[in-house]
Amino acid sequence: MASPDDSASAPRTAVYAGSFDPITNGHVDIVQRSMQVFDQVIVAVAFNLHKDSALFTPAERVDMIATVFQSSAGRVRADSFSGLLVDYAQAMDAKVIIRGLRAVADFEYEFQMTMMNRHLKSNIETIFMMAGEAHFYTSSRLVKEVVSLGGDVEGLVPEIVLRRLRAKVGR
Amino acid sequence: MASPDDSASAPRTAVYAGSFDPITNGHVDIVQRSMQVFDQVIVAVAFNLHKDSALFTPAERVDMIATVFQSSAGRVRADSFSGLLVDYAQAMDAKVIIRGLRAVADFEYEFQMTMMNRHLKSNIETIFMMAGEAHFYTSSRLVKEVVSLGGDVEGLVPEIVLRRLRAKVGR
Amino acid sequence: MASPDDSASAPRTAVYAGSFDPITNGHVDIVQRSMQVFDQVIVAVAFNLHKDSALFTPAERVDMIATVFQSSAGRVRADSFSGLLVDYAQAMDAKVIIRGLRAVADFEYEFQMTMMNRHLKSNIETIFMMAGEAHFYTSSRLVKEVVSLGGDVEGLVPEIVLRRLRAKVGR
Amino acid sequence: MASPDDSASAPRTAVYAGSFDPITNGHVDIVQRSMQVFDQVIVAVAFNLHKDSALFTPAERVDMIATVFQSSAGRVRADSFSGLLVDYAQAMDAKVIIRGLRAVADFEYEFQMTMMNRHLKSNIETIFMMAGEAHFYTSSRLVKEVVSLGGDVEGLVPEIVLRRLRAKVGR
Amino acid sequence: MASPDDSASAPRTAVYAGSFDPITNGHVDIVQRSMQVFDQVIVAVAFNLHKDSALFTPAERVDMIATVFQSSAGRVRADSFSGLLVDYAQAMDAKVIIRGLRAVADFEYEFQMTMMNRHLKSNIETIFMMAGEAHFYTSSRLVKEVVSLGGDVEGLVPEIVLRRLRAKVGR
Amino acid sequence: MASPDDSASAPRTAVYAGSFDPITNGHVDIVQRSMQVFDQVIVAVAFNLHKDSALFTPAERVDMIATVFQSSAGRVRADSFSGLLVDYAQAMDAKVIIRGLRAVADFEYEFQMTMMNRHLKSNIETIFMMAGEAHFYTSSRLVKEVVSLGGDVEGLVPEIVLRRLRAKVGR
Repeated sequence: MASPDDSASAPRTAVYAGSFDPITNGHVDIVQRSMQVFDQVIVAVAFNLHKDSALFTPAERVDMIATVFQSSAGRVRADSFSGLLVDYAQAMDAKVIIRGLRAVADFEYEFQMTMMNRHLKSNIETIFMMAGEAHFYTSSRLVKEVVSLGGDVEGLVPEIVLRRLRAKVGR
Repeated sequence: MASPDDSASAPRTAVYAGSFDPITNGHVDIVQRSMQVFDQVIVAVAFNLHKDSALFTPAERVDMIATVFQSSAGRVRADSFSGLLVDYAQAMDAKVIIRGLRAVADFEYEFQMTMMNRHLKSNIETIFMMAGEAHFYTSSRLVKEVVSLGGDVEGLVPEIVLRRLRAKVGR
Repeated sequence: MASPDDSASAPRTAVYAGSFDPITNGHVDIVQRSMQVFDQVIVAVAFNLHKDSALFTPAERVDMIATVFQSSAGRVRADSFSGLLVDYAQAMDAKVIIRGLRAVADFEYEFQMTMMNRHLKSNIETIFMMAGEAHFYTSSRLVKEVVSLGGDVEGLVPEIVLRRLRAKVGR
Repeated sequence: MASPDDSASAPRTAVYAGSFDPITNGHVDIVQRSMQVFDQVIVAVAFNLHKDSALFTPAERVDMIATVFQSSAGRVRADSFSGLLVDYAQAMDAKVIIRGLRAVADFEYEFQMTMMNRHLKSNIETIFMMAGEAHFYTSSRLVKEVVSLGGDVEGLVPEIVLRRLRAKVGR
Repeated sequence: MASPDDSASAPRTAVYAGSFDPITNGHVDIVQRSMQVFDQVIVAVAFNLHKDSALFTPAERVDMIATVFQSSAGRVRADSFSGLLVDYAQAMDAKVIIRGLRAVADFEYEFQMTMMNRHLKSNIETIFMMAGEAHFYTSSRLVKEVVSLGGDVEGLVPEIVLRRLRAKVGR
Repeated sequence: MASPDDSASAPRTAVYAGSFDPITNGHVDIVQRSMQVFDQVIVAVAFNLHKDSALFTPAERVDMIATVFQSSAGRVRADSFSGLLVDYAQAMDAKVIIRGLRAVADFEYEFQMTMMNRHLKSNIETIFMMAGEAHFYTSSRLVKEVVSLGGDVEGLVPEIVLRRLRAKVGR
């Protein structure tokens, strides 16, 4: 086979960013699938210093992600950032942004964000992956709502998240 | 950096399949973006021996694709296949299928195809990329319809396609 | 005809839950249609003790619903609850949850809620009904917004709601 | 509890109509869920005498449905009809039409059909149910396409359908 | 008020094109609304010489449209054309194309057509209008299907169309 | 040509209302297109006295709009209003409301607003126009978010807005 150019043969790093408040099995599914395509996946908690209304602090969120992927630590890295995603990706030498697509409603927002990110940095590409159908209803928001109303979310989030969620809501 | 596992360090090949009847600048855009993520991209014309009602033969379509990407021949390969896409991808040692997403209407069909393909071969992953906004209206079907009605599609398809389209419709 | 099993011949009770802040003619339409399918329909105001930002109190909302359906009191019951809908439905011996579908935008949220509710209690089923086209634009939110800006919503909400809305906004 | 009116206490019959060419596990899932709501469910193959381009004849389709539900024969009935669905439902003394909803793309078509059916017969109501997420990609059309290309659809259709599909396509 | 420029003060002509096979009350509704915005509305039957599979001939369709709008003959004109819509609009000295929007499913196709039409002739603008909610389910296709199955479409199409439809299908 | 009736030959005024916080090049694009259809376009900042959480005051927003369109001052007018849009339109002697459509997600909200506005004032019509594809991702909200994170929005908003945005966020 013809040798690809240098940029192609270097280790491929992709950033998978989100609020991850908390990480769910749907997110985990996307990370595992993306490891089939990239050498390194950075799972990056995006936070806003001034108006973050998350349940977990950025540090708690990063810690849960690191725990979930500790057996893949050589290829998955947990981190956090504030500011523009494209600036963060560039600083991390990542040329690809991974986004999970679940529903039509996500689609247009994602389309707009992709176009905006290309406007901001044309050399960073966005790819989309679809979580398995078992994760169609596993949004962080819905998980938190169900837990706050006393519902059981076992199977929808990793073990570490299940324990921390229960601790947070005092059940 | 920690060395990724072997499957990760091998050259990455992805298949971008479609009817490409004919290839448009929207398709070309997706191929160029995917070269930022993969070492090799196979642009594969999918055809059906028994009921193909395409304007161009599979051979003509492959030929136009090969012409368009001749300067990237080491990394982009034009081919054709009939049968299941996942079988073709496996035969080509490609672990990733690339799909272009343009509109919400595409999304659900793509979602169903992705789930079906995972059912058929769980080790082949599908990723989605979005063409630039300039290509939002450049579908092969619309291009053919406009040409058949005497409209000009310059700028919407590669030069070689423009010439062949004009030859086909006798203008 | 063969006698259906016991669970089938018992009186059928369904829960139609929502914030109903306030009930509109679109909701009334759904209740009336659901009476063709079920023996008893419980119209249940869902509220959150800690962060309810509704215009009407849960008691006011239940009272308006009871007034609207007073002539069908044997078959329609107004109630309120906090907590998980599936827990409430089970406590009321209802095996079916009714949801109104109006727009595509509702659809995906409803799909996710349905899947989550099945995850929480697999023996409770969700059905969807479509309000008449005359009620396409009659959301509680839009009704409140129009009234607050001085617009007339006669014909969009029941008489009792019209009077109480006017009393609330002091017109 | 107050006794419901007579129309309410009679055995409830609902019609679940479609082309069922062939019935899939997604359809089976909807029938099983609808048995929780209705006493009798008629699974009715809709066909058009003049322009039916189905793979299986109406009789073959009814036969497969009857085989799948033979253990529930007292409550599920397989039948076929041509003409308007509302006329058929009325002839069968069914006041409710069941429709399965899977994707946003279905939604608007279903909305239009529901409004048209109400226009034709206002006393027949349509309800929608959602198949389980495992059946999101199990359309009859996609199943037939995959089989025709040599793919395996075990788990997506009932056993009897799997055998007949293989017999039809000669594998 | 400041005098608008010449192009603005000339009589405004808009083209409302479609297959109109046949015209429905939903189309009529759009024409009537558009008369509030434009001086002249041309209702133009688009046909394809080679592959038109319509129920009515272009001449029959134009004739029905002319009959429906005969009392507004000074402002509404029935016509037919083949070829590109933008070429026809330009030939008729119309700077605006009117499109009816009914459903989300229409939206993306319309978006693509609008962009394509701007690509072909940048000086012709497309505007969209929404038919009344009573016409949400009145598509020409659905009307023909219902009539062919023996259903009544009174109220959904103009009187002249009702008579001609019944004559065509021999009822 | 037959002379149109008086209402048709009078100068046509349309209202294009929104929060315009701030006006973007997507909005400017819609205004320019609408000038091809109407004699006068009123660009009207809608604000709410009690709960406006906008970045710019209504006066600042009107001022930016007036600056952008100063060369078309005879045909484009910047204004602001609170209350119902249909009341404002009527007060301004405008029979048409212009709305920009960008995404499917907008569509249903716009549909509901259109139906509500017709309910409130049946003689005022709403038309929709689509911004160019270059403006697909240029929402006011996204522009503000990017600026607040240090991103560059040159090319997405008019010069005057760019300067004021930078002044507001202190960069």
